[in-house]
Amino acid sequence: MLKTPAYAAESAKAPLVPFSVERREPGPSDVLIDILYCGVCHSDIHQARDEWGGSTFPMVPGHEIVGRVARVGGSVTRFKVGDAVGVGCMVDSCRECAQCRTGEEQYCDHGAVMTYNGRGRDGTPTQGGYSTLITVDESFVLRIPESIPLDRAAPLLCAGITTYSPLRHFGLKAGDKLAVVGLGGLGHMGVKFGKALGAEVTVLSTSPSKEKAAKELGAAHFAATSDKDTFKRLAGQFDVILDTVSAPHDYNAYLSLLKVDGTMILVGAPEAPVPLAAFSLIARRRKLVGSLIGGIRETQEMLDFCGEHELASDIELIPIQKINEAYERMIKGDVRYRFVIDIASLR
Amino acid sequence: MLKTPAYAAESAKAPLVPFSVERREPGPSDVLIDILYCGVCHSDIHQARDEWGGSTFPMVPGHEIVGRVARVGGSVTRFKVGDAVGVGCMVDSCRECAQCRTGEEQYCDHGAVMTYNGRGRDGTPTQGGYSTLITVDESFVLRIPESIPLDRAAPLLCAGITTYSPLRHFGLKAGDKLAVVGLGGLGHMGVKFGKALGAEVTVLSTSPSKEKAAKELGAAHFAATSDKDTFKRLAGQFDVILDTVSAPHDYNAYLSLLKVDGTMILVGAPEAPVPLAAFSLIARRRKLVGSLIGGIRETQEMLDFCGEHELASDIELIPIQKINEAYERMIKGDVRYRFVIDIASLR
Repeated sequence: MLKTPAYAAESAKAPLVPFSVERREPGPSDVLIDILYCGVCHSDIHQARDEWGGSTFPMVPGHEIVGRVARVGGSVTRFKVGDAVGVGCMVDSCRECAQCRTGEEQYCDHGAVMTYNGRGRDGTPTQGGYSTLITVDESFVLRIPESIPLDRAAPLLCAGITTYSPLRHFGLKAGDKLAVVGLGGLGHMGVKFGKALGAEVTVLSTSPSKEKAAKELGAAHFAATSDKDTFKRLAGQFDVILDTVSAPHDYNAYLSLLKVDGTMILVGAPEAPVPLAAFSLIARRRKLVGSLIGGIRETQEMLDFCGEHELASDIELIPIQKINEAYERMIKGDVRYRFVIDIASLR
Repeated sequence: MLKTPAYAAESAKAPLVPFSVERREPGPSDVLIDILYCGVCHSDIHQARDEWGGSTFPMVPGHEIVGRVARVGGSVTRFKVGDAVGVGCMVDSCRECAQCRTGEEQYCDHGAVMTYNGRGRDGTPTQGGYSTLITVDESFVLRIPESIPLDRAAPLLCAGITTYSPLRHFGLKAGDKLAVVGLGGLGHMGVKFGKALGAEVTVLSTSPSKEKAAKELGAAHFAATSDKDTFKRLAGQFDVILDTVSAPHDYNAYLSLLKVDGTMILVGAPEAPVPLAAFSLIARRRKLVGSLIGGIRETQEMLDFCGEHELASDIELIPIQKINEAYERMIKGDVRYRFVIDIASLR
């Protein structure tokens, strides 16, 4: 086994503290990765604090992992030592169900093996990227294009694929009018992808102060949802709405902004159910859909797309010693737009 | 003007009573129809009693109209005297917006002209099919295949197209597993269309007593939703769910019955908004959609499909003098599956 320094939550109520985890020696199909950067996702907080229930401790969070290959198993064909690689939310799946066979491992019938706060198929608890090393089967390792700075690539592994996948799957086309609701870690990637895919992007945000930032990211328009007139003015305007917001909000109001046959995509999940009026959908044959990260094949496609378009996340790089402070700032929405841990601070 | 006997509600609180309306003399593009049968839709009750607000009185309900052509205007090319024809929920639209141009007049940007409780483009209030004659522009007149009994064809004009359109639009395929929720006027047509389109149909109903009827209509399976075990047993089983129910029910429970990428179609509209948990959609990339009747082109396609498959509604034929009693029975769900008025009783 390979001992690696890490930061872990030892219980739901405790701050993250220095910890040590063991990684398996790479088997024939495994890749051992020297972790360089790890993005900080809001779901790290939810799980470290057991806000969704069922968390297991001690827990090393982190599923936006970027590093370089340190060693490969004997049958590994796709990677060699020194390659820039990434690991996202999943490190394994059953590989046999209909979804795994079509490369949609995130919807594995048996539940994909999550990168942390999960259990490997051998029963071992998984531990995430707030650490210096990780061993992952090559089937779940992504290649990072060298045209993207590695620190800014890290958030692509979760925030990136979570927004790219539904925009592609639900058919956003060049010339479409796309509204992105919320301008956080997910929303800012939604704006970048929307623009890169040729859509005319409008950011809808409760904070009028975000207009300048939205336009710098590539949005053509901005509308403050705190202004009631916004919903009248933009009624029936959008082909697609990407809703990244987890705070309570009125789906019916946002649905009214869709054209006939428009699609509203939920990637944020408010804690409590949201009242939905059937007529919000029926009146203009609208679609309300959800989407969960993306499969490995599509994550690679997204990374290659980012490489071609030199597109990456906007980040604040922090040493791991600032992680608890970063969590507090994220809860207040005080980050542009993703914290990324410089794992050099852990060595 | 042509005077025609009818039945009308003179106010929201009054029962329907004998009445007289005037129809316009057919203009160049008009068809004058001798009405033979008119289906009774639940929305007739909602509107006659002003339960949706905005009703105008006196009101002659009825938008499931079947008859024979009595006279045609000089420029009418598609119909001749004696043809079996139908009129559904719409008698006109702007004909210029994007939806009208693609034959989706039900989503007309300016609002389609509804068959009754609406206003024609000249401002005249529209009056429906509980009457002996109606004058309609040929663009909104449907051809009824002679292989269908005319009385059983009437409900196709609303209940038929309301269920056929979304099953086609959202891509129900042969071999798909379809659940139809609710076995009323809409639901029983959903079962028939689902089977005719090659799907394996399951009826989900609160009433275990409906199992026999469901199977007679063509359902392969039946499950009582009053049995909690149903939702465990059928979790993740369906490609498509057609939800015809207007009574309050838990969307999240039904969504859990969909496969990955499954679609739940709302054609019934509960009065109050229904709490929706985002994760019901996100977890397996499910779609919740709505659909409103169908366009004229697709309504003709549906009627032709019914003609080929000798498929029609199951009805109870009543004289118009029983209409108030029929309304009371419909409210109790006591009809298999649609009342149709024999307009001979009005002459």
